[in-house]
Amino acid sequence: MADGSPTGRLTGPLHVIGAGLLGTSLGLAARRQGLEVWLSDVNPEHVRTAVSLGAGEPAPTDGVAQLVVVAVPPVHIAEVAVAALATGAVVTDIGSVKAQPLEQISDHVDEADLARYVGSHPMAGSERSGPLAASASLFDGRPWAVTPHVHADPDAVTLVEELVALSGASAVRLSPVEHDLAVARTSHLPHLLAVLAAGQLTDAVPEHLSLSGQGVRDVTRVAAGDPDLYGQIIRANAGVVGELLRSLRGQLDELIDAVGAGSSDDLVEILNRGVSGTRIIPGKHGGAPIETGPVYVLVPDHPGELARLFGDIGEIGVNVEDLRIDHDPGRLVGLVELQVEASAAERLRSALEARNWTAHR
Amino acid sequence: MADGSPTGRLTGPLHVIGAGLLGTSLGLAARRQGLEVWLSDVNPEHVRTAVSLGAGEPAPTDGVAQLVVVAVPPVHIAEVAVAALATGAVVTDIGSVKAQPLEQISDHVDEADLARYVGSHPMAGSERSGPLAASASLFDGRPWAVTPHVHADPDAVTLVEELVALSGASAVRLSPVEHDLAVARTSHLPHLLAVLAAGQLTDAVPEHLSLSGQGVRDVTRVAAGDPDLYGQIIRANAGVVGELLRSLRGQLDELIDAVGAGSSDDLVEILNRGVSGTRIIPGKHGGAPIETGPVYVLVPDHPGELARLFGDIGEIGVNVEDLRIDHDPGRLVGLVELQVEASAAERLRSALEARNWTAHR
Repeated sequence: MADGSPTGRLTGPLHVIGAGLLGTSLGLAARRQGLEVWLSDVNPEHVRTAVSLGAGEPAPTDGVAQLVVVAVPPVHIAEVAVAALATGAVVTDIGSVKAQPLEQISDHVDEADLARYVGSHPMAGSERSGPLAASASLFDGRPWAVTPHVHADPDAVTLVEELVALSGASAVRLSPVEHDLAVARTSHLPHLLAVLAAGQLTDAVPEHLSLSGQGVRDVTRVAAGDPDLYGQIIRANAGVVGELLRSLRGQLDELIDAVGAGSSDDLVEILNRGVSGTRIIPGKHGGAPIETGPVYVLVPDHPGELARLFGDIGEIGVNVEDLRIDHDPGRLVGLVELQVEASAAERLRSALEARNWTAHR
Repeated sequence: MADGSPTGRLTGPLHVIGAGLLGTSLGLAARRQGLEVWLSDVNPEHVRTAVSLGAGEPAPTDGVAQLVVVAVPPVHIAEVAVAALATGAVVTDIGSVKAQPLEQISDHVDEADLARYVGSHPMAGSERSGPLAASASLFDGRPWAVTPHVHADPDAVTLVEELVALSGASAVRLSPVEHDLAVARTSHLPHLLAVLAAGQLTDAVPEHLSLSGQGVRDVTRVAAGDPDLYGQIIRANAGVVGELLRSLRGQLDELIDAVGAGSSDDLVEILNRGVSGTRIIPGKHGGAPIETGPVYVLVPDHPGELARLFGDIGEIGVNVEDLRIDHDPGRLVGLVELQVEASAAERLRSALEARNWTAHR
């Protein structure tokens, strides 16, 4: 379908604009499926690297792709998408915010071209960036939001959802506005609260941080993300995020009152609301949260010990839902927290102790 | 030293009041070292359970312990400690807040008795509670704050630090006020921010939560903790926590302005402060944070596969600093994130791919 008119069947060529981590990974995933992939980037070095990794070929100067994927930084998405729509191709972008680019694109193209634009957002990434960090499996098993606007061509939507499936991700269809509300609550607001939790540590007496446990590490981990990138993402969703932050200020005021109140009722009610929040996050594989229980195991901190532990766990036949190595000061021993189905926790603990592991729940 | 006058050498008997998770675990740890342990609890069932687990013997009606450990809920610590000091024993409590109980105890005992009180706080716990969740290894490798007041008998302080060492923990000496400031920043404030991050999810459209990634799970995990217990802890430290929350409101206002500002400078500055905060949290074994990098590996989600993975990692000889199983919707495959020393990440990735694992960084 070299003229790019949508058919809903993804046959290529696929043109990825922006050969960074996501664009190059997408090229690798598409090549894995035998699709013809064109790559371009304002930085020719990125294209050379992506091509050398097998993510595709440099984009020809003429020729029209069936599907163009705009994988550039948030601030450049609209201009690049508008240019791509002018070629007659179906166009998607993979930016983290969807309403603002749609609005900007709508201002510059007619309805016929706009029908070929379908925004999307893969829930995938890495602490590293650039084509060298790319992987064909980056999207495997991740949710990937597909956010058609009301005038989107249904075949164009199907084409983008074929791209999602081809990359190994799971399509989640939402309107652009719904998407931005969703990520504001599930990503942007938690990120900013982690930033506040981490930021106030910089005011602490350094010695006091020796009392840091796994809790503060978990709460603050995402705050280590690239400030420039997150700055662009959050500002592109500034309306929704600002509104949620203002309502959060109201909740913070309630919390301040509750902490200082004569009775603990209000504070406990707020804490209970937090417990409810942790329970409604979808569990592994998007299903209902699995009721898990922890089993803690003491593991000498050198290579091979984890192998021995998981060898035993495999023989015991209990599936590990989640795990973490706790960081313990002063001793060269790791405390591994295994989360297993609650009903299996006691069996695992006793079976591990029978194999001479120090384990407790 | 049955008369309980401090000598700095812990010879017992050790009287643990409160045979819950922590008290029973402490009894088990002390028995492991051959110390005579007395147990008491308002709930005789708890004592029977703890005794049956080998955590010690029921406390005799007469006789004076060398060291009394008050392991009761925060609201009862002071009254129990005052009664224990009257017996002439050295007394510590293991509550999560230190200034308030000291103040309450000071109001009811003379300086001579007060000299034998030394508060402490083990950074250990479990999602479960009660004696059945106890373990002799609960304190292994954990920090344990020891918080002597200015009039504390040095021998009494040494005695409590001997208890910490005997339980396998690492003593961190702080004043009660310093301790409460430290945990307010490293524990109470992060906990409350996690509660706010989780609580606002309850206002989300359920379908929108399908876009939840590992980030929001990490930020909100601790918010699942027992509301009644955390309510008592935070209210016992209400002064410090309230002050930090009010200064946090100021930072939230700055954040709201920054999100809506014409330039991204202020927002990026706030995000950078968050990055700094994540970098000053002490690393594994209390040392300087280790520069780690992630390696992601796709693992079929059934028993035995993790064993095979860690068997290979063990043979490759790279030490895993931290790891997590990412939760991916829609596919029965686990994405395991391995954190390894940054310099070893690429070697591990390529070695795993050579062993036919799908791995990326």
